[in-house]
Amino acid sequence: MDFSSFLTSLGTSFAIFVILMLLFTWLSRKPGNSVVYYPNRIWRGLDPYENGARTRNPFAWIREALSSSEEDVIAVSGVDTAVYFVFLTTVCRGRFSLLIVIIPLPTNMSTFLPHIVLRLPANVRNSAANVRNSATRVPAYSHFGPTRQSWTRHKAVIPRAGEAALVFKLVTSRLHEVLGILVFSGLVLLPLLLPVAATGKYVPETNSTSSGTFNDLDKLSMGHIKPNSPRLWAFVIATYWVSFVTYFLLWKAYKHVSSLRAAALMSSEVRAEQFSVLVRDIPPSPEGQTRKEQVDTYYKTIYPESFYRSMVVTENKQVNEIWVELEGYKKKLARAEAVYALSKKTGKPEGTRPMNKTGFLGLIGKKVDTIEYCNEKINELIPKLEAEQKVTLREKQQASALVFFTSRVTAAAAAQSLHARMVDTWTVMDAPEPRQIIWTNLPKSFYERQIRQYVVYIIVFLTIVFYMIPIGFISAFTTLGNLKKLLPFLKPIINQDVIRTVLEAYLPQIALIVFLALLPKFLLFLSKAEGIPSESHAIRAASGKYFYFIVLNVFLGVTVGGALFSTLKTIEKKPNKIVSLLGSSLPANATFFLTYVALQFFVGYGLELSRIVPLIIYHLKRRYLCKTEAELKEAWAPGDLGYATRIPKDMLIITIVLCYSVIAPVIIPFGVIYFGLGWLVLRNQALKVYVPSYESYGRLWPHVHTRILAALILYQVTMVGYFILKEFRSTPVLIPLPVLSFIFAFVCSKKFYRFFQSTALEVACHELKETPNMELIFRSFIPPSLSAEKSDDDHFEDALSHVSRSGSFA
Amino acid sequence: MDFSSFLTSLGTSFAIFVILMLLFTWLSRKPGNSVVYYPNRIWRGLDPYENGARTRNPFAWIREALSSSEEDVIAVSGVDTAVYFVFLTTVCRGRFSLLIVIIPLPTNMSTFLPHIVLRLPANVRNSAANVRNSATRVPAYSHFGPTRQSWTRHKAVIPRAGEAALVFKLVTSRLHEVLGILVFSGLVLLPLLLPVAATGKYVPETNSTSSGTFNDLDKLSMGHIKPNSPRLWAFVIATYWVSFVTYFLLWKAYKHVSSLRAAALMSSEVRAEQFSVLVRDIPPSPEGQTRKEQVDTYYKTIYPESFYRSMVVTENKQVNEIWVELEGYKKKLARAEAVYALSKKTGKPEGTRPMNKTGFLGLIGKKVDTIEYCNEKINELIPKLEAEQKVTLREKQQASALVFFTSRVTAAAAAQSLHARMVDTWTVMDAPEPRQIIWTNLPKSFYERQIRQYVVYIIVFLTIVFYMIPIGFISAFTTLGNLKKLLPFLKPIINQDVIRTVLEAYLPQIALIVFLALLPKFLLFLSKAEGIPSESHAIRAASGKYFYFIVLNVFLGVTVGGALFSTLKTIEKKPNKIVSLLGSSLPANATFFLTYVALQFFVGYGLELSRIVPLIIYHLKRRYLCKTEAELKEAWAPGDLGYATRIPKDMLIITIVLCYSVIAPVIIPFGVIYFGLGWLVLRNQALKVYVPSYESYGRLWPHVHTRILAALILYQVTMVGYFILKEFRSTPVLIPLPVLSFIFAFVCSKKFYRFFQSTALEVACHELKETPNMELIFRSFIPPSLSAEKSDDDHFEDALSHVSRSGSFA
Repeated sequence: MDFSSFLTSLGTSFAIFVILMLLFTWLSRKPGNSVVYYPNRIWRGLDPYENGARTRNPFAWIREALSSSEEDVIAVSGVDTAVYFVFLTTVCRGRFSLLIVIIPLPTNMSTFLPHIVLRLPANVRNSAANVRNSATRVPAYSHFGPTRQSWTRHKAVIPRAGEAALVFKLVTSRLHEVLGILVFSGLVLLPLLLPVAATGKYVPETNSTSSGTFNDLDKLSMGHIKPNSPRLWAFVIATYWVSFVTYFLLWKAYKHVSSLRAAALMSSEVRAEQFSVLVRDIPPSPEGQTRKEQVDTYYKTIYPESFYRSMVVTENKQVNEIWVELEGYKKKLARAEAVYALSKKTGKPEGTRPMNKTGFLGLIGKKVDTIEYCNEKINELIPKLEAEQKVTLREKQQASALVFFTSRVTAAAAAQSLHARMVDTWTVMDAPEPRQIIWTNLPKSFYERQIRQYVVYIIVFLTIVFYMIPIGFISAFTTLGNLKKLLPFLKPIINQDVIRTVLEAYLPQIALIVFLALLPKFLLFLSKAEGIPSESHAIRAASGKYFYFIVLNVFLGVTVGGALFSTLKTIEKKPNKIVSLLGSSLPANATFFLTYVALQFFVGYGLELSRIVPLIIYHLKRRYLCKTEAELKEAWAPGDLGYATRIPKDMLIITIVLCYSVIAPVIIPFGVIYFGLGWLVLRNQALKVYVPSYESYGRLWPHVHTRILAALILYQVTMVGYFILKEFRSTPVLIPLPVLSFIFAFVCSKKFYRFFQSTALEVACHELKETPNMELIFRSFIPPSLSAEKSDDDHFEDALSHVSRSGSFA
Repeated sequence: MDFSSFLTSLGTSFAIFVILMLLFTWLSRKPGNSVVYYPNRIWRGLDPYENGARTRNPFAWIREALSSSEEDVIAVSGVDTAVYFVFLTTVCRGRFSLLIVIIPLPTNMSTFLPHIVLRLPANVRNSAANVRNSATRVPAYSHFGPTRQSWTRHKAVIPRAGEAALVFKLVTSRLHEVLGILVFSGLVLLPLLLPVAATGKYVPETNSTSSGTFNDLDKLSMGHIKPNSPRLWAFVIATYWVSFVTYFLLWKAYKHVSSLRAAALMSSEVRAEQFSVLVRDIPPSPEGQTRKEQVDTYYKTIYPESFYRSMVVTENKQVNEIWVELEGYKKKLARAEAVYALSKKTGKPEGTRPMNKTGFLGLIGKKVDTIEYCNEKINELIPKLEAEQKVTLREKQQASALVFFTSRVTAAAAAQSLHARMVDTWTVMDAPEPRQIIWTNLPKSFYERQIRQYVVYIIVFLTIVFYMIPIGFISAFTTLGNLKKLLPFLKPIINQDVIRTVLEAYLPQIALIVFLALLPKFLLFLSKAEGIPSESHAIRAASGKYFYFIVLNVFLGVTVGGALFSTLKTIEKKPNKIVSLLGSSLPANATFFLTYVALQFFVGYGLELSRIVPLIIYHLKRRYLCKTEAELKEAWAPGDLGYATRIPKDMLIITIVLCYSVIAPVIIPFGVIYFGLGWLVLRNQALKVYVPSYESYGRLWPHVHTRILAALILYQVTMVGYFILKEFRSTPVLIPLPVLSFIFAFVCSKKFYRFFQSTALEVACHELKETPNMELIFRSFIPPSLSAEKSDDDHFEDALSHVSRSGSFA
């Protein structure tokens, strides 16, 4: 890939982004689209267009995103989303704000860098007027929360330094948070390394940075330094700097997230899951006792005062089936009635009664009146459901239960304590939120879970290993030269200049992106198959698997892959060569990843912001499918942020940027834009679009933390390899770095991790606003298919009154 | 070493043992020695000679040991001792009793094996008459506990099968428990492998089993098999058999120990440590609050109902010094008064008032009347102590405390729960017993402990590595040939036949034993320096270190050491050679270890049983030093079993016997005798001699379990190496074994280990015999130097009444 195709790629990406952003500004103003662009607000019953959001200004959303505080995010979207933003910012509050944008400007950067760095300040200049205008409107400030102070400070600045300074400050005071690690790294690396590299004047025998003639990038990379040159010390310092910046910011972030979690857990709101624990692996119940009695006796003996009640998990398959069928008919009835009502209005005054066939997919079978048919079916199913509910509750009790306590402290302590002598019986853990319990996984036994886990690990391992092969093919296949050879009929098309450039720029990346879209569902399925009891945990597990997949296959696969196959024999002889191989194959792919990152942020975030796809789907559904209010609501239901795929993708970018940060520092601004833009766009989406589907109180973070550290260690090992390749005599000076990283990881997990596994008692003992309504808490855990509409769940009452407190167990 | 010197070694060892045993029979009958041979009974206020122990029969103690039950041991010596016996037996209750001794007899064993195997039955035959005699005496049965049933069964047998059968059954019904792993292994290995080996008829080029001409042993070892012979399959089977026997018995033992621990913890007796938790790493107390208030507020908020009181750890150095000085003068006074009283009786009727000099060691300085002087000093020190106590309690409060709860369940749950958000503050754990708390370690901070731990690990690592060098020297130096060369003046002595034989037999072993005696104290000191809060934990840690030392240095050092130095260059080139090196150097040292084991059991246990050294020391002290009752009591205080060195030594024997079990199966009977004799002798000592100095409720076991598994894995790796050396094509068939061992270790630690870390709540919730007297529990933790004789520890009362329940913390 040469320089022009690189610029083309960058340019088209940016053009697409600008178009998408304008599209967003235009589309989001239309009231008909509000359910697509403001579903979260509508969900919460707010006016979508408060805060003057219905402006023509294309940058209004930026201002809103920038001025929202962490408390806003927690209030709207929960702790998990806030933690995700902590990840994006990897907090670095301080007075560095202005430095960050200003310092990189005077540095002697390559020809194209300023374009990108200045792109954002340029936007900001446009929005400056807009900010001043909005300063007259009071409601805009009501959402500012703790930043209100700084805002008033800003206002004081307005008359003196003018609007440019104000916006600058607003942007940067946010930006410096957004970009912690990368900004701090760039701050030192760009001014330090680029001049050192540019004046290196070493032309390697083979073009190491790219396979084309892209010498401009070459000059700014570490490849431009002579082997074993004293200049390499600058790169050693840079390697250390990046590592220490990462340690420092990760440490601060962990602390911050820990306090976010504590604040959420000690909240005076009553939250059902804080009063209950999940019990699994209940041993076979003794003769003449039901499970329910067994569980009640056991916990009542241990907690005579604070035990409230227990709910034994039942085998719900049958009852769920009936319930789903019933709900289906209810929907169908509502739809038929809506159609009937509509036909009265539009057609004949007596209307057309909707008809359908009873057979397969409504295509075959007897034709019946839908409304009558559904009513019949519903009347038939309701008693069936009730009978099945009773049978399920009485006879299908499983070896798992939820136990409810009247105090948060007891529940928190119970979830952490060993109850039975054998660890494989009466296993306890924090109860997940009712909405995220995976009921079918609860009764799985201890050993079944262990075995499932290892089986899944093996499957994932195989998947990772064997996915490498197709990816290797793709990266070999999608170079244009190969394409021409393999598919000669494409030759006339490819030979056209424009098409060729575009193809060269995008083909490999698009292939990769499409390819990767197939996997996450599979990994989530595997994670659930492990026997994990909660949705959020399963998503974290899937995200972890996806991370290893993506780093190993995409990053290492693309970089090392090609070289690996050709040198497989060398490696067999000298396994320690793999480190230097890593070092040698990285620079060759620098441009590939530069365009990959650029594509991700411009097109990816452009699509994210404009929500073109959901918009089209919604409008299609609204016009042709949806008849009732409920159906319409379902059509625009926004879903959540989707951490399972989002985080691994971000992690891939972090891995790429970290690994190249010293070798080719020009990648840093790309990373900065990726996360900066991501922060802006997702802040907007979190506040207005997505509705969180669960709350795990920041359990996300240790997962993210570990993976950033894994990326850092990969970076450090790569650097050792690259320095060896540069015949740098003092390479061992880098050896302490990976060791340090492991120590850092160990210390962090020692200090912080346990609080993310379980609730600290000092947090749980905070007073509640009101005495918790235990009945309500208990009911919130009853799955919908079991909650009788008449509240006569006599079974639970029966079982409770049976309990004798005299029971004892060995 | 040739065959005759081997037999000499064995014979002299046995002779020494017989002499020591007769000495024991003779000495233990004298009433003046009862405090040496029955101190435990005297300690507990029992008659030392109950059960007709004062018999001339030299085997009476064997009968008593055999007929004692596990409950007896727990009652007399605590759960830890019982667990130690579980280790010795690695339980295998069943109907294998008779098989064990009978089956090995008809097998075609080597010339000397029957001697050894039959030695014990021979003893038993003598004691048969004795058993029948004692059957008429009723008290002898009172201690039988649960074995009484089997005893009556035995009685029924007497008229028919005669006394031989009875004693046989009594011995074997115990023996088969004693020797679990080794007996089961021997049961299969001896009949299977010895014939296979004996008919192998392969004479290796170099004599692989010993450097001498000891071909008899050679014939019975795996070295006698042709390389890659199909006969090796028998040895493969044997290798698997030993491993599976070990898994099976370890699993059963872990289960059994777990139930012992549970029984002890759920006992209805009130035990102070079950009502308290140890809190460490208390953060700096807020302005205007003492530590005591801080701790009370914190725990009262979390446990409003069950919190009783707290005891802040204080800096006791000064107060301890004064207290020690005071106690010294009190002792001196008592002694002087006794001397004075004695002088009245023996000399002049008015007596001689004892005098002493006040200076250094009583050698210089002014001469004073001791009684007056001591009284003066005591009167001076008592108010000083009281003042210092007050100061200590008020002003020297440290960042650690004991917190007392009114319920066992709360204490058990509290010890397992995370209290603070940061794991490095408010760390909680089970409180150790008052008598085993290491007070000075309690206030050490989280990070200090971590760092100390790693520093200690490094020191231990260095110790292990650099001790290898002197051991290598010793094993090279102490071959007689080398000795002659190095010290030519010894030649005339060495050339005498008797001396030469004895020297050859003992020199290396004695050198080793002396050498090893230097280490344990050092390791215990290091373990305490880690910051471990309880004596028992420190002893376990020291024992673990000693195990690694002993296995690496003694076992591997002796076996691999010599070969290692000569082939160091080969290893550098091929690191995978180390496994086969292990295999190749083992057989060469078989006779060394055979004599080592024999020396350990005959001389070691002979000395243990006869207690010659404590006896002499006691009599010397009694005659020349002790004047008062208290001093005399101190002189015969028996101490405890001393796990810190005893367990690693047993582990070394297990490691040796396991590693040689298949290569040279004749070692198995030696191992059987070691543990059988050990069981007998120590059962006697546990019941009559040693007084346990702490109770850790079987926390010993996971430690022992892990180390037996480590020995097993070493054995499996060694076997792989040895099979490779034998050019056995199917060696990979052994690879699954170490993997299996790791899986087994993992499953065991998953299933059982957590209960040994903390108390299961279902165990703690058992009802108590009486309402616990919390004041008594609290007082039992006050260190002696702080317990005021007048009970006006107003400080504690003060602090308790201060507590406000309104405090809160972030």
